[in-house]
Amino acid sequence: MRSLARLSALLPVLALTLVACAEQAQQDTAAEEMEMAMPLDRAQLETAIEAVNAQFMDAVRAGDAAGVAALYTDDATLLPPDAEMVQGMAAVQEFWAAGIAPEGMNLTLTTVSVEGAGDYAYEIGTWSMPAGEGEAAAEAHGKYLVVWKRGAGGTWKLHADIWNDSTPAE
Amino acid sequence: MRSLARLSALLPVLALTLVACAEQAQQDTAAEEMEMAMPLDRAQLETAIEAVNAQFMDAVRAGDAAGVAALYTDDATLLPPDAEMVQGMAAVQEFWAAGIAPEGMNLTLTTVSVEGAGDYAYEIGTWSMPAGEGEAAAEAHGKYLVVWKRGAGGTWKLHADIWNDSTPAE
Repeated sequence: MRSLARLSALLPVLALTLVACAEQAQQDTAAEEMEMAMPLDRAQLETAIEAVNAQFMDAVRAGDAAGVAALYTDDATLLPPDAEMVQGMAAVQEFWAAGIAPEGMNLTLTTVSVEGAGDYAYEIGTWSMPAGEGEAAAEAHGKYLVVWKRGAGGTWKLHADIWNDSTPAE
Repeated sequence: MRSLARLSALLPVLALTLVACAEQAQQDTAAEEMEMAMPLDRAQLETAIEAVNAQFMDAVRAGDAAGVAALYTDDATLLPPDAEMVQGMAAVQEFWAAGIAPEGMNLTLTTVSVEGAGDYAYEIGTWSMPAGEGEAAAEAHGKYLVVWKRGAGGTWKLHADIWNDSTPAE
Protein backbone atom coordinates (compact mmCIF):
# COMPACT_ATOMS: atom_id res chain seq x y z
CA MET A 1 0.00 0.00 0.00
CA ARG A 2 2.84 2.38 0.73
CA SER A 3 4.24 2.11 -2.73
CA LEU A 4 0.80 2.64 -4.24
CA ALA A 5 0.47 5.82 -2.19
CA ARG A 6 3.87 6.96 -3.44
CA LEU A 7 2.86 6.26 -7.01
CA SER A 8 -0.32 8.27 -6.51
CA ALA A 9 1.73 11.18 -5.20
CA LEU A 10 3.89 11.03 -8.30
CA LEU A 11 0.97 10.96 -10.71
CA PRO A 12 0.53 14.74 -11.03
CA VAL A 13 4.25 15.15 -11.73
CA LEU A 14 4.17 12.36 -14.27
CA ALA A 15 1.10 13.80 -15.92
CA LEU A 16 2.57 17.30 -16.09
CA THR A 17 5.76 15.86 -17.59
CA LEU A 18 3.68 14.15 -20.23
CA VAL A 19 1.97 17.48 -20.99
CA ALA A 20 5.33 19.17 -21.37
CA CYS A 21 6.51 16.31 -23.59
CA ALA A 22 3.48 16.48 -25.80
CA GLU A 23 3.82 20.26 -26.13
CA GLN A 24 7.48 19.99 -27.07
CA ALA A 25 6.71 17.27 -29.61
CA GLN A 26 3.97 19.45 -31.03
CA GLN A 27 6.30 22.43 -31.39
CA ASP A 28 8.96 20.27 -33.07
CA THR A 29 6.44 18.80 -35.48
CA ALA A 30 5.03 22.21 -36.27
CA ALA A 31 8.47 23.71 -36.91
CA GLU A 32 9.46 20.79 -39.11
CA GLU A 33 6.26 20.94 -41.11
CA MET A 34 6.30 24.70 -41.48
CA GLU A 35 9.71 24.28 -43.07
CA MET A 36 8.32 21.62 -45.40
CA ALA A 37 5.25 23.73 -46.14
CA MET A 38 4.76 27.12 -47.67
CA PRO A 39 5.41 29.67 -48.96
CA LEU A 40 9.11 29.41 -49.74
CA ASP A 41 11.09 32.61 -49.35
CA ARG A 42 11.26 33.90 -52.92
CA ALA A 43 14.54 35.80 -52.59
CA GLN A 44 16.35 32.76 -51.15
CA LEU A 45 14.78 30.49 -53.72
CA GLU A 46 15.80 32.80 -56.57
CA THR A 47 19.39 32.90 -55.33
CA ALA A 48 19.52 29.09 -55.13
CA ILE A 49 17.95 28.62 -58.57
CA GLU A 50 20.12 31.25 -60.24
CA ALA A 51 23.22 29.51 -58.86
CA VAL A 52 22.17 26.25 -60.55
CA ASN A 53 21.28 28.14 -63.75
CA ALA A 54 24.82 29.59 -63.74
CA GLN A 55 26.17 26.00 -63.65
CA PHE A 56 23.71 25.08 -66.42
CA MET A 57 24.94 27.91 -68.68
CA ASP A 58 28.59 27.10 -67.93
CA ALA A 59 28.04 23.45 -68.87
CA VAL A 60 26.19 24.36 -72.11
CA ARG A 61 28.91 26.86 -73.04
CA ALA A 62 31.53 24.13 -72.42
CA GLY A 63 29.61 21.56 -74.52
CA ASP A 64 29.33 19.37 -71.40
CA ALA A 65 26.08 17.37 -71.74
CA ALA A 66 26.87 15.21 -68.68
CA GLY A 67 27.37 18.38 -66.65
CA VAL A 68 23.98 19.68 -67.78
CA ALA A 69 22.26 16.33 -67.11
CA ALA A 70 23.68 16.20 -63.57
CA LEU A 71 21.59 19.26 -62.71
CA TYR A 72 18.34 17.31 -63.32
CA THR A 73 16.61 14.89 -60.93
CA ASP A 74 16.98 11.17 -61.71
CA ASP A 75 13.36 11.04 -62.89
CA ALA A 76 13.25 14.41 -64.63
CA THR A 77 11.05 15.08 -67.65
CA LEU A 78 12.22 17.21 -70.57
CA LEU A 79 9.57 18.63 -72.92
CA PRO A 80 11.54 20.03 -75.86
CA PRO A 81 9.81 21.77 -78.78
CA ASP A 82 9.42 19.84 -82.06
CA ALA A 83 10.16 16.51 -80.33
CA GLU A 84 8.54 14.01 -78.00
CA MET A 85 8.90 14.00 -74.21
CA VAL A 86 12.19 12.76 -72.74
CA GLN A 87 12.16 10.95 -69.37
CA GLY A 88 14.91 10.13 -66.89
CA MET A 89 18.40 11.51 -66.42
CA ALA A 90 20.08 9.14 -68.91
CA ALA A 91 17.67 10.16 -71.68
CA VAL A 92 18.07 13.81 -70.66
CA GLN A 93 21.83 13.49 -71.06
CA GLU A 94 21.39 11.84 -74.48
CA PHE A 95 19.12 14.70 -75.53
CA TRP A 96 21.61 17.36 -74.51
CA ALA A 97 24.54 15.41 -75.99
CA ALA A 98 22.75 15.51 -79.35
CA GLY A 99 21.54 19.09 -78.91
CA ILE A 100 24.59 20.95 -77.63
CA ALA A 101 27.33 21.65 -80.16
CA PRO A 102 30.59 19.97 -79.00
CA GLU A 103 32.28 23.37 -78.93
CA GLY A 104 29.51 24.67 -76.67
CA MET A 105 26.69 27.12 -77.20
CA ASN A 106 26.29 30.61 -75.86
CA LEU A 107 22.97 30.14 -74.03
CA THR A 108 21.67 32.82 -71.66
CA LEU A 109 18.97 32.01 -69.09
CA THR A 110 17.23 34.86 -67.25
CA THR A 111 14.92 34.15 -64.31
CA VAL A 112 11.69 36.15 -64.44
CA SER A 113 9.94 34.78 -61.34
CA VAL A 114 10.10 31.93 -58.83
CA GLU A 115 7.46 30.63 -56.43
CA GLY A 116 6.92 27.40 -54.55
CA ALA A 117 6.05 25.33 -51.52
CA GLY A 118 7.79 22.55 -49.66
CA ASP A 119 10.28 20.75 -51.86
CA TYR A 120 8.81 22.04 -55.12
CA ALA A 121 9.34 25.37 -56.82
CA TYR A 122 8.75 26.65 -60.28
CA GLU A 123 10.59 29.21 -62.31
CA ILE A 124 9.46 31.24 -65.28
CA GLY A 125 12.35 32.53 -67.37
CA THR A 126 13.55 33.64 -70.75
CA TRP A 127 16.38 32.22 -72.83
CA SER A 128 18.40 33.64 -75.70
CA MET A 129 21.12 32.33 -77.96
CA PRO A 130 22.92 33.69 -81.03
CA ALA A 131 21.20 32.15 -84.05
CA GLY A 132 22.97 29.51 -86.14
CA GLU A 133 24.60 30.37 -89.47
CA GLY A 134 22.20 30.99 -92.31
CA GLU A 135 19.30 31.83 -89.98
CA ALA A 136 17.39 35.03 -90.65
CA ALA A 137 17.39 36.54 -87.15
CA ALA A 138 20.63 37.36 -85.34
CA GLU A 139 19.34 35.81 -82.16
CA ALA A 140 16.89 33.11 -81.11
CA HIS A 141 14.91 33.88 -77.98
CA GLY A 142 12.15 32.27 -76.04
CA LYS A 143 10.83 31.39 -72.62
CA TYR A 144 10.77 28.42 -70.31
CA LEU A 145 9.01 26.96 -67.31
CA VAL A 146 11.02 24.76 -64.95
CA VAL A 147 9.69 22.76 -62.00
CA TRP A 148 12.46 22.49 -59.43
CA LYS A 149 12.60 19.77 -56.79
CA ARG A 150 14.67 19.91 -53.62
CA GLY A 151 16.39 16.66 -52.80
CA ALA A 152 18.59 15.30 -50.03
CA GLY A 153 21.08 17.89 -48.81
CA GLY A 154 18.75 20.72 -49.83
CA THR A 155 19.95 20.78 -53.44
CA TRP A 156 17.47 22.13 -55.99
CA LYS A 157 17.39 20.20 -59.27
CA LEU A 158 15.45 20.61 -62.51
CA HIS A 159 12.56 18.15 -62.35
CA ALA A 160 10.49 19.20 -65.36
CA ASP A 161 11.78 21.49 -68.08
CA ILE A 162 9.86 22.89 -71.05
CA TRP A 163 10.60 25.79 -73.36
CA ASN A 164 9.54 27.31 -76.63
CA ASP A 165 10.53 30.02 -79.06
CA SER A 166 9.04 33.51 -78.81
CA THR A 167 9.71 34.42 -82.47
CA PRO A 168 6.45 34.51 -84.46
CA ALA A 169 6.12 31.46 -86.74
CA GLU A 170 6.67 32.29 -90.43
CA MET B 1 -7.95 22.46 3.88
CA ARG B 2 -10.71 20.16 2.79
CA SER B 3 -11.15 21.90 -0.54
CA LEU B 4 -7.37 21.92 -1.08
CA ALA B 5 -7.34 18.18 -0.49
CA ARG B 6 -10.15 17.81 -2.99
CA LEU B 7 -8.24 19.88 -5.52
CA SER B 8 -5.16 17.71 -4.98
CA ALA B 9 -7.24 14.64 -5.59
CA LEU B 10 -8.43 16.16 -8.86
CA LEU B 11 -4.94 17.10 -10.07
CA PRO B 12 -4.13 13.78 -11.76
CA VAL B 13 -7.45 13.89 -13.61
CA LEU B 14 -6.85 17.49 -14.65
CA ALA B 15 -3.33 16.70 -15.76
CA LEU B 16 -4.41 13.67 -17.75
CA THR B 17 -7.10 15.77 -19.39
CA LEU B 18 -4.46 18.31 -20.37
CA VAL B 19 -2.36 15.53 -21.86
CA ALA B 20 -5.32 14.33 -23.88
CA CYS B 21 -5.99 17.93 -24.97
CA ALA B 22 -2.42 18.54 -26.02
CA GLU B 23 -2.36 15.29 -27.94
CA GLN B 24 -5.57 16.14 -29.74
CA ALA B 25 -4.27 19.64 -30.55
CA GLN B 26 -1.08 18.12 -31.84
CA GLN B 27 -2.95 15.72 -34.09
CA ASP B 28 -5.15 18.56 -35.42
CA THR B 29 -2.15 20.78 -36.11
CA ALA B 30 -0.29 17.94 -37.77
CA ALA B 31 -3.26 17.05 -39.94
CA GLU B 32 -3.72 20.69 -40.94
CA GLU B 33 -0.06 21.16 -41.72
CA MET B 34 0.28 17.87 -43.54
CA GLU B 35 -2.46 19.19 -45.79
CA MET B 36 -0.48 22.40 -46.38
CA ALA B 37 2.74 20.46 -46.69
CA MET B 38 3.77 17.56 -48.83
CA PRO B 39 3.49 15.42 -50.73
CA LEU B 40 -0.01 16.00 -52.02
CA ASP B 41 -1.97 12.84 -52.64
CA ARG B 42 -1.42 12.29 -56.35
CA ALA B 43 -4.65 10.43 -57.05
CA GLN B 44 -6.78 13.16 -55.41
CA LEU B 45 -4.77 15.87 -57.13
CA GLU B 46 -5.16 14.20 -60.51
CA THR B 47 -8.93 13.93 -60.05
CA ALA B 48 -9.16 17.63 -59.14
CA ILE B 49 -6.97 18.73 -62.04
CA GLU B 50 -8.71 16.52 -64.59
CA ALA B 51 -12.04 18.02 -63.53
CA VAL B 52 -10.74 21.52 -64.32
CA ASN B 53 -9.23 20.28 -67.58
CA ALA B 54 -12.65 18.93 -68.56
CA GLN B 55 -14.07 22.45 -68.05
CA PHE B 56 -11.13 23.85 -70.04
CA MET B 57 -11.83 21.54 -73.00
CA ASP B 58 -15.56 22.26 -72.85
CA ALA B 59 -14.90 26.02 -72.95
CA VAL B 60 -12.43 25.70 -75.86
CA ARG B 61 -14.88 23.48 -77.76
CA ALA B 62 -17.59 26.09 -77.17
CA GLY B 63 -15.35 28.97 -78.32
CA ASP B 64 -15.74 30.52 -74.86
CA ALA B 65 -12.52 32.49 -74.14
CA ALA B 66 -13.96 34.03 -70.95
CA GLY B 67 -14.79 30.54 -69.70
CA VAL B 68 -11.22 29.42 -70.37
CA ALA B 69 -9.72 32.54 -68.74
CA ALA B 70 -11.82 32.03 -65.59
CA LEU B 71 -9.89 28.80 -64.94
CA TYR B 72 -6.62 30.77 -64.51
CA THR B 73 -5.44 32.64 -61.40
CA ASP B 74 -5.70 36.44 -61.50
CA ASP B 75 -1.93 36.74 -61.92
CA ALA B 76 -1.42 33.75 -64.21
CA THR B 77 1.33 33.63 -66.81
CA LEU B 78 0.81 32.13 -70.25
CA LEU B 79 3.89 31.15 -72.26
CA PRO B 80 2.57 30.38 -75.74
CA PRO B 81 4.87 29.20 -78.55
CA ASP B 82 5.86 31.71 -81.25
CA ALA B 83 4.73 34.64 -79.10
CA GLU B 84 5.81 36.63 -76.07
CA MET B 85 4.71 35.91 -72.48
CA VAL B 86 1.18 36.92 -71.48
CA GLN B 87 0.52 38.05 -67.90
CA GLY B 88 -2.67 38.43 -65.88
CA MET B 89 -6.16 37.05 -66.37
CA ALA B 90 -7.35 39.90 -68.65
CA ALA B 91 -4.42 39.38 -71.04
CA VAL B 92 -4.96 35.61 -70.83
CA GLN B 93 -8.58 36.09 -71.89
CA GLU B 94 -7.50 38.35 -74.77
CA PHE B 95 -5.02 35.70 -75.89
CA TRP B 96 -7.61 32.94 -75.91
CA ALA B 97 -10.22 35.20 -77.53
CA ALA B 98 -7.78 35.70 -80.42
CA GLY B 99 -6.62 32.08 -80.44
CA ILE B 100 -9.82 30.07 -80.20
CA ALA B 101 -11.99 29.92 -83.29
CA PRO B 102 -15.44 31.41 -82.50
CA GLU B 103 -17.06 28.09 -83.45
CA GLY B 104 -14.78 26.34 -80.96
CA MET B 105 -11.85 23.98 -81.36
CA ASN B 106 -11.68 20.28 -80.66
CA LEU B 107 -8.80 20.32 -78.16
CA THR B 108 -7.95 17.21 -76.14
CA LEU B 109 -5.83 17.46 -72.99
CA THR B 110 -4.43 14.28 -71.43
CA THR B 111 -2.77 14.37 -68.03
CA VAL B 112 0.48 12.36 -67.89
CA SER B 113 1.57 13.08 -64.31
CA VAL B 114 0.87 15.37 -61.38
CA GLU B 115 2.95 16.15 -58.32
CA GLY B 116 3.04 18.93 -55.79
CA ALA B 117 3.25 20.36 -52.30
CA GLY B 118 1.11 22.74 -50.30
CA ASP B 119 -0.93 24.99 -52.56
CA TYR B 120 1.19 24.31 -55.66
CA ALA B 121 1.07 21.41 -58.03
CA TYR B 122 2.36 20.81 -61.49
CA GLU B 123 1.00 18.75 -64.30
CA ILE B 124 2.72 17.28 -67.32
CA GLY B 125 0.34 16.49 -70.14
CA THR B 126 -0.15 16.07 -73.85
CA TRP B 127 -2.54 17.92 -76.13
CA SER B 128 -3.92 17.12 -79.55
CA MET B 129 -6.18 18.88 -82.00
CA PRO B 130 -7.31 18.19 -85.57
CA ALA B 131 -5.03 20.24 -87.83
CA GLY B 132 -6.38 23.25 -89.67
CA GLU B 133 -7.31 23.11 -93.35
CA GLY B 134 -4.37 22.97 -95.74
CA GLU B 135 -1.99 21.65 -93.08
CA ALA B 136 0.06 18.59 -93.98
CA ALA B 137 -0.63 16.41 -90.91
CA ALA B 138 -4.16 15.37 -89.98
CA GLU B 139 -3.55 16.24 -86.37
CA ALA B 140 -1.40 18.62 -84.36
CA HIS B 141 -0.05 17.24 -81.10
CA GLY B 142 2.24 18.40 -78.38
CA LYS B 143 2.84 18.59 -74.67
CA TYR B 144 2.39 21.06 -71.86
CA LEU B 145 3.49 21.87 -68.35
CA VAL B 146 1.03 23.62 -66.06
CA VAL B 147 1.70 24.98 -62.59
CA TRP B 148 -1.53 24.81 -60.61
CA LYS B 149 -2.23 26.97 -57.56
CA ARG B 150 -4.88 26.24 -54.95
CA GLY B 151 -6.79 29.32 -53.85
CA ALA B 152 -9.53 30.14 -51.37
CA GLY B 153 -12.14 27.41 -51.20
CA GLY B 154 -9.61 24.81 -52.28
CA THR B 155 -10.07 25.48 -56.00
CA TRP B 156 -7.12 24.60 -58.22
CA LYS B 157 -6.43 27.12 -60.99
CA LEU B 158 -3.89 27.31 -63.80
CA HIS B 159 -1.13 29.65 -62.60
CA ALA B 160 1.51 29.15 -65.29
CA ASP B 161 0.83 27.45 -68.61
CA ILE B 162 3.32 26.60 -71.34
CA TRP B 163 3.09 24.24 -74.25
CA ASN B 164 4.81 23.34 -77.48
CA ASP B 165 4.38 21.16 -80.53
CA SER B 166 5.87 17.67 -80.67
CA THR B 167 5.93 17.48 -84.48
CA PRO B 168 9.52 17.71 -85.77
CA ALA B 169 10.26 21.12 -87.32
CA GLU B 170 10.49 21.02 -91.12
